[in-house]
Amino acid sequence: MEINLISDTVTRPGKGMLAAMMDAEVGDDVFKADPTVNALESEAAAMFGREAALFFPSGTMTNQTAIKLHTNPGDQLICDHYAHVYNYEGGGVSFNSGVSCKLIEGQRGMITATQVEKAINPPDFYHSPLTRLVCIENTTNKGGGACWDFEELKRIRKVCDAHGLSYHLDGARLWNAMVAKGETAEQYGRMFDTISVCLSKGLGCPVGSLLIGDREHIDKALRVRKILGGGMRQVGYLAAAGLYALRNNIERLVEDHNKASEIGQTLSKLEFVKKVEPIETNIIIFEVEEKIITAELFTETLKKNNIHIISMGQGKLRMVTHLDYTGAMHKELLKRLTSL
Amino acid sequence: MEINLISDTVTRPGKGMLAAMMDAEVGDDVFKADPTVNALESEAAAMFGREAALFFPSGTMTNQTAIKLHTNPGDQLICDHYAHVYNYEGGGVSFNSGVSCKLIEGQRGMITATQVEKAINPPDFYHSPLTRLVCIENTTNKGGGACWDFEELKRIRKVCDAHGLSYHLDGARLWNAMVAKGETAEQYGRMFDTISVCLSKGLGCPVGSLLIGDREHIDKALRVRKILGGGMRQVGYLAAAGLYALRNNIERLVEDHNKASEIGQTLSKLEFVKKVEPIETNIIIFEVEEKIITAELFTETLKKNNIHIISMGQGKLRMVTHLDYTGAMHKELLKRLTSL
Amino acid sequence: MEINLISDTVTRPGKGMLAAMMDAEVGDDVFKADPTVNALESEAAAMFGREAALFFPSGTMTNQTAIKLHTNPGDQLICDHYAHVYNYEGGGVSFNSGVSCKLIEGQRGMITATQVEKAINPPDFYHSPLTRLVCIENTTNKGGGACWDFEELKRIRKVCDAHGLSYHLDGARLWNAMVAKGETAEQYGRMFDTISVCLSKGLGCPVGSLLIGDREHIDKALRVRKILGGGMRQVGYLAAAGLYALRNNIERLVEDHNKASEIGQTLSKLEFVKKVEPIETNIIIFEVEEKIITAELFTETLKKNNIHIISMGQGKLRMVTHLDYTGAMHKELLKRLTSL
Amino acid sequence: MEINLISDTVTRPGKGMLAAMMDAEVGDDVFKADPTVNALESEAAAMFGREAALFFPSGTMTNQTAIKLHTNPGDQLICDHYAHVYNYEGGGVSFNSGVSCKLIEGQRGMITATQVEKAINPPDFYHSPLTRLVCIENTTNKGGGACWDFEELKRIRKVCDAHGLSYHLDGARLWNAMVAKGETAEQYGRMFDTISVCLSKGLGCPVGSLLIGDREHIDKALRVRKILGGGMRQVGYLAAAGLYALRNNIERLVEDHNKASEIGQTLSKLEFVKKVEPIETNIIIFEVEEKIITAELFTETLKKNNIHIISMGQGKLRMVTHLDYTGAMHKELLKRLTSL
Repeated sequence: MEINLISDTVTRPGKGMLAAMMDAEVGDDVFKADPTVNALESEAAAMFGREAALFFPSGTMTNQTAIKLHTNPGDQLICDHYAHVYNYEGGGVSFNSGVSCKLIEGQRGMITATQVEKAINPPDFYHSPLTRLVCIENTTNKGGGACWDFEELKRIRKVCDAHGLSYHLDGARLWNAMVAKGETAEQYGRMFDTISVCLSKGLGCPVGSLLIGDREHIDKALRVRKILGGGMRQVGYLAAAGLYALRNNIERLVEDHNKASEIGQTLSKLEFVKKVEPIETNIIIFEVEEKIITAELFTETLKKNNIHIISMGQGKLRMVTHLDYTGAMHKELLKRLTSL
Repeated sequence: MEINLISDTVTRPGKGMLAAMMDAEVGDDVFKADPTVNALESEAAAMFGREAALFFPSGTMTNQTAIKLHTNPGDQLICDHYAHVYNYEGGGVSFNSGVSCKLIEGQRGMITATQVEKAINPPDFYHSPLTRLVCIENTTNKGGGACWDFEELKRIRKVCDAHGLSYHLDGARLWNAMVAKGETAEQYGRMFDTISVCLSKGLGCPVGSLLIGDREHIDKALRVRKILGGGMRQVGYLAAAGLYALRNNIERLVEDHNKASEIGQTLSKLEFVKKVEPIETNIIIFEVEEKIITAELFTETLKKNNIHIISMGQGKLRMVTHLDYTGAMHKELLKRLTSL
Repeated sequence: MEINLISDTVTRPGKGMLAAMMDAEVGDDVFKADPTVNALESEAAAMFGREAALFFPSGTMTNQTAIKLHTNPGDQLICDHYAHVYNYEGGGVSFNSGVSCKLIEGQRGMITATQVEKAINPPDFYHSPLTRLVCIENTTNKGGGACWDFEELKRIRKVCDAHGLSYHLDGARLWNAMVAKGETAEQYGRMFDTISVCLSKGLGCPVGSLLIGDREHIDKALRVRKILGGGMRQVGYLAAAGLYALRNNIERLVEDHNKASEIGQTLSKLEFVKKVEPIETNIIIFEVEEKIITAELFTETLKKNNIHIISMGQGKLRMVTHLDYTGAMHKELLKRLTSL
Repeated sequence: MEINLISDTVTRPGKGMLAAMMDAEVGDDVFKADPTVNALESEAAAMFGREAALFFPSGTMTNQTAIKLHTNPGDQLICDHYAHVYNYEGGGVSFNSGVSCKLIEGQRGMITATQVEKAINPPDFYHSPLTRLVCIENTTNKGGGACWDFEELKRIRKVCDAHGLSYHLDGARLWNAMVAKGETAEQYGRMFDTISVCLSKGLGCPVGSLLIGDREHIDKALRVRKILGGGMRQVGYLAAAGLYALRNNIERLVEDHNKASEIGQTLSKLEFVKKVEPIETNIIIFEVEEKIITAELFTETLKKNNIHIISMGQGKLRMVTHLDYTGAMHKELLKRLTSL
């Protein structure tokens, strides 16, 4: 039995989703004539209580487009030093938008309103870049799937309002946060100027991401998506998976979280595990006692046991539970871990 | 009977293609672990006799990536003033690459080696942009599906070599040119530094484009694709359609060409048609006698007859034949046109 | 006697200007504390009846900054195919602003309102770049120092207003146009959103250019100038030359124009001169009978006679009169030309 | 007596320098025909034992050009989190080059080779930007005029060589470091790929900066300077000041350093001064006891005493000694400080 915990991006559509894909009615989405894409965009916008949504081939493009909407070249955005937009989007913030990042050292990928306020450059001091945007990530990826305190998000909103900054949510795993904290999409929709959500992580779709916002932003996003090359034709096959996932795969995330929690408990009892970071959703980050076994050797040992996880560097290891990680796999994993 | 001749991008997968999609084995292509995508890329590279290929969500992204590979910001590329990269990619040449276009007034979208040579800026005259790339399009879109004289392409290659320029082929409809002229993919593979081909036009796939070149260019293209947001996960469903199309839908393009030719003959006999441009592949461009009927009124009249075509501005109209334009539709169209 | 007619940029400050420079009171202009720069900016703004002006190290930076003010990456500007911003600013439109140019084939560098209107891309057709700016040049450089019909400029203004476009004047040689046509700076100030004027061509300063506009644009320009690296410290030495020139060197441009006119008359009588283009200001563009003498050989022959002119390619030659081209030189030139 | 210690950029040319400027032989530097500029560039290149140098209107443009030479859009550079290129060049790294910064928390603006090596992104992990350049600053501005340990610079050079990175020195105040540490320009010339030095700070020129490197880099820099708008005409007037300064104003920097040191000693004895950072060159950074007097109030109090200094935020204050800060001013300052 092969157990792949590298990422929740490795899932493959199950029967129900695949059937939905193959039955999809499609059209040319470049002319906005794909009924399934249109339905997905409408349903997502409605969930968040916003005017519009737009389908993208990747979460990277969704975030990059949002950043472009809110900034001009030379401007600066504020984010945690762990932020996906800074670390894992290929330098796109500067490539696509000519924008730099003011990095804040937060806690597990989360920053405070006080930190944000201090990080704003004086708008009339033109030697420093003009601060225009705050990007936050919920759950945090590099921060180990941590969920934000909603009250802190509100306080940051106030700072943004006071200083004329836009506020973007990289919600690649927002569904996990919502399920873990009992929050609604509408709460987030009311808070942020734009939100990106992924269909291809916890929700189990093969491909796809959505940008959510008001009509004006989404109309501009259409143009940016075209320029970046994200306009696709009969892409309703992928959108159908998204619709299926929105309707069927959100509530079940609680199962991934429970499994992750149990893995964490098991890990914390192993003598060669030095530390397990708090587990709030489907990501487990832990460190091994390097005197007993190095992270690399541990990863290799697991691999020989058909368990796949990844090293995050600096002695940290990561496991991610997901839709294709079954109950049987879970039992097996806990057994194998204990018998190492 | 609804007859849509707006573009060859409107096709929807038939049973065979859809079955191939449904049966596709998929993986996470961001980790290059999708076997169907890998198979498509290998097969396409082999067809063109080149080292490597890369799958993209759109032809725009394929072209934009190629332009980025061959240039630095401030450089200039040479193309026909009808070129898709200049006219219909949202200004991406300048947005994504910081590059300007030297436009040449060619014939039906095709330029000569002599014109290219004259358009090169002196490399040591730093007031003008540095010329770095020649982009040609085969067949030409705005030029009415015209096919290049292969000897002229060779002469341009020599000019590029003499001046250290890269040479990119926008082959969105290259399959049509190859079928019409009896040329092979290998001939093109030997000629150009990079080639983009579309799977979603004549070949009938829902989504997808490929960039073909040597290993070094494709490795760099992977990075550019990531930055633009074109990295997708289990995208083998779309790649499966591409594989199916490469194997089944190229030779049949001759049917589209024959139908286009017959439409042209019919049009040229109509008294209110002023001029039909030469038809070499699947695109028909024609003008109406504006004294008898305006282009707009003509388009409207056809629409009422359930025939959809588009106006290209300045009195020109366009029809495009394709995989979903059946023999029955063709008979019906010729009948309706004659009875107008 | 060395006669240099390569460009009006070759002038060197005379005694009066040099004295003004050396007596300048200076401060740190990065903190806007250079009184001479401040005086120059105020005086120039007042001349044009506008709120503000900003000093730049070059006309290229002034134009590039203006283009940046009026556009976002991906946008398009409209200009004549001879335009300096397209041809001679190193590709900066795309490098600095990510913007492309829609080129119009005008007459001697001048386009019509009708042409401008036709060149605007439909704003909701996001395949083509968004048109945002019209740039015109007065006098035209590559167009041979031609002066615009002020009524046509007004008609273009109306087109801009109707379509929400900005309107920038590259006035590198605007002083020549104003003197030749009896126009005032205020007339231009009322017409355009931003105007760039050069101090280093006809006006004879060693270095410097000004951007003129409203307060909001100039405040933003300060930031762009900083980013491009155009912020200088005790630059009042150069600004002093500019102040001197504004007060002393505008009216005298008529002398340069008269000399240019006389050179044109002389040239047109020479049997080996095929054509002299109309001369309106200080630029003479002419062609030689290539059967008698090639442009290159003619340039070489003049060089041996200590007369320096430049070839513009395609058989065209250019002479430019200026402040350092004295009456004695003029007599000598006419003599030498006639005796060739 | 007005005492201005805001920055060493506030200096104004003395008699000798002004005379040199007035007597300068000039030409059109855009055609590289200004003999004084050419002489300055040759002399500077020779000092550093390098092939070539290029004159720029500002240190910002010199640094920005160097960064452009060594990178492509999407790449990343490594620098201290205090770096001028990141903090005080208007976001130009991202605007001009599309590049992001990996920030290292160093000591007083100085980082270690070990830190640099850890900050390099894996070149084949295309999710993160490609690391291409290390920028260091000597002396450090925000770090309080600190001078690097030359051995650490060598170790960073080795890391750059091992990983194929370029190495740029922002030497805005390199002269101060050389004088303070008894180092030569040639030592630095051998170490770095490119070096920028300012003529307008410690050296007392009104305007100007130089980029130093090999012929190939400087040739490319000429093109970048043109695009950014840094090409100037008869700029020999400014270059003459630079030549004068290179010949007369380097050794005397020791006087500025001595004065700074004495100011530091005086400050450290004042009861309301909490901390004076180590003083190595001409910059004094100190903190006041906020319980006794706030930084703002202290700055105001000095201002009333005709002493001008600046607040750096977070309770830090800065004084900078320079050419125009005379011995008389120095005595007066020490007196006034003690009597506060």
